[in-house]
Amino acid sequence: MYIDDLPTPALIIEANALEHNLTAMSALFPGTTLRPHVKAHKCTSLAKVQERFGHTGFTCATPREVLGLAKANLNADILLANECVDVARLGAIAGTNVTIAVDSEETIRAAFRAGLKKVVIDVFVGLPRCGCEPDDAGRLADLARSLGLTVRGVMGYEGHLMMEKTADKQHQVNAAMQTLHACAEIVGGDLISAGGTGTYKEHLTSGITELQAGSYALMDTHYATLGFPFIQAAHVVGTVISRSAQWAVADVGLKALGMDHGNPEVDGYDVWFCSDEHITFAVKRDAASLPAPAPLVLPQVGERVLITPAHIDPTMSQHERAFVHREGQVVDEWAIDLRGW
Amino acid sequence: MYIDDLPTPALIIEANALEHNLTAMSALFPGTTLRPHVKAHKCTSLAKVQERFGHTGFTCATPREVLGLAKANLNADILLANECVDVARLGAIAGTNVTIAVDSEETIRAAFRAGLKKVVIDVFVGLPRCGCEPDDAGRLADLARSLGLTVRGVMGYEGHLMMEKTADKQHQVNAAMQTLHACAEIVGGDLISAGGTGTYKEHLTSGITELQAGSYALMDTHYATLGFPFIQAAHVVGTVISRSAQWAVADVGLKALGMDHGNPEVDGYDVWFCSDEHITFAVKRDAASLPAPAPLVLPQVGERVLITPAHIDPTMSQHERAFVHREGQVVDEWAIDLRGW
Repeated sequence: MYIDDLPTPALIIEANALEHNLTAMSALFPGTTLRPHVKAHKCTSLAKVQERFGHTGFTCATPREVLGLAKANLNADILLANECVDVARLGAIAGTNVTIAVDSEETIRAAFRAGLKKVVIDVFVGLPRCGCEPDDAGRLADLARSLGLTVRGVMGYEGHLMMEKTADKQHQVNAAMQTLHACAEIVGGDLISAGGTGTYKEHLTSGITELQAGSYALMDTHYATLGFPFIQAAHVVGTVISRSAQWAVADVGLKALGMDHGNPEVDGYDVWFCSDEHITFAVKRDAASLPAPAPLVLPQVGERVLITPAHIDPTMSQHERAFVHREGQVVDEWAIDLRGW
Repeated sequence: MYIDDLPTPALIIEANALEHNLTAMSALFPGTTLRPHVKAHKCTSLAKVQERFGHTGFTCATPREVLGLAKANLNADILLANECVDVARLGAIAGTNVTIAVDSEETIRAAFRAGLKKVVIDVFVGLPRCGCEPDDAGRLADLARSLGLTVRGVMGYEGHLMMEKTADKQHQVNAAMQTLHACAEIVGGDLISAGGTGTYKEHLTSGITELQAGSYALMDTHYATLGFPFIQAAHVVGTVISRSAQWAVADVGLKALGMDHGNPEVDGYDVWFCSDEHITFAVKRDAASLPAPAPLVLPQVGERVLITPAHIDPTMSQHERAFVHREGQVVDEWAIDLRGW
């Protein structure tokens, strides 16, 4: 079967591009120095490929991701890098080899009551989201240990720096990590977990023990603006279902895409807007004068178009499955089996 | 069970508010003058409530929605108000009582080859999306009839006018419908199907035979700006999982919401941003001086917050189920069973 035979919209993954990305990242962060974040793809089949590249520990954002990884025998060392106070749901993952992020008394007590064994202290390093005040890290570690929990170390997500493009980026990441390192000294344990795809370069010298990166595997137009050596491996294939003199419409709408970073790209065309089940696009206004050749005519009804998502994580979670291909030939079908909570 | 007991994020529907909205709309558009659009909720259980309010015909955007409605015995008169050239997928709905929108030779031939029996001619009335040139409607109707298809009439979606707020709105809708009425005369048949929640008022006098509205049932913050008599019936419940002195974080992220219309609202607070699995929010800067009392303090970790989506359609499609409640007590659980394509 070829990708041109798939019912659309179809999420496709180019195997060579994926392997290129995994090769590039694992060369820089081999083995357990990379803890791939599965929230970026929500797919245990893809996680297994990452495991074959040497990464045996994984990062999760939801209890369901933890459970799914464990059921898929990817249970060597799972980090739930997110807070949760739902004792019932935490109890359901107590049988897995999970370590959970905590940043308050409430989250520590929930982990304890649920029968979890291992925590990391999540520290605020600049992104206004989760993470305790650095001054509070030692007290929380003591509280966790007093309840019999193993404190494996610290994590801190400098999400506010992911898209930073100034020469000051290394300095800013280092400053955030200085906070984390100071907490690590106080907290103890051997994990210093941080970062993401956007800051992988800076973490080559930041002194953390592991990088939490996810988007590098499949990429999107947002991360593509950073000029990294990772290439676009995931697209959504659409079929043109309508066409006027000025625009064409394909059957890939906003329900098949993550829209929080704006419109996706349609290879060679200008995107006008997305509706629930449609994308309207047109010939680029300056197509003839562009350095890279852009199509001067619209595709016909029935033709296929390739759409590149602006944000990969929520695009993956819109789809039930992804089709893996090499040069257009479908070689595998992967369930996006970690969706939901 | 109460909504405070649900694992979060949880999509909830307030039954009284839903019934209020269905009562209000069915009073204006009774019976088959309203053809509820199921893309707005993707839920056959909710469609069955709409049927109990007298609406036996439904509008769909995808073949899977058609199949799901038919399987749920909501097969009296289904309109697939969207173009499709996938003969295999159309063949799968040939056994249902479906009428499909066509706007080109290709879409007519696909319907014919798939064994479909009934079409409407979809006419461009101002939104750059699907719909034939008005001048072409007669030729397409003739072509469809020459292949033995029943041409039931016309449809035209004036989506560009949904959010129009000027006094000129009635005039603009009338102008778009003049085009549609002219085509209806040429095309024949007895269906003149158009509109949406945003233009329901204008269609009280526009002369169409049926309104395609969906969002009125559950509503969102976007449609709420229009001042309609429909009230918010759907929310996403979150749990606060982290809190600093300046902000709090709940476990409802952009994967639990439709984000194409921007951030959702958190009852009484200022939303800062959404991440994949988080929403960061703060006390309103001017909380003390607001006419409606706004909270002056952040909720505690473990407390619940109510989140109102900016766009209901793609919020529904993120969830596997909705919990129906009356004053907080869960009275039903509905599968969002029409997701996907």
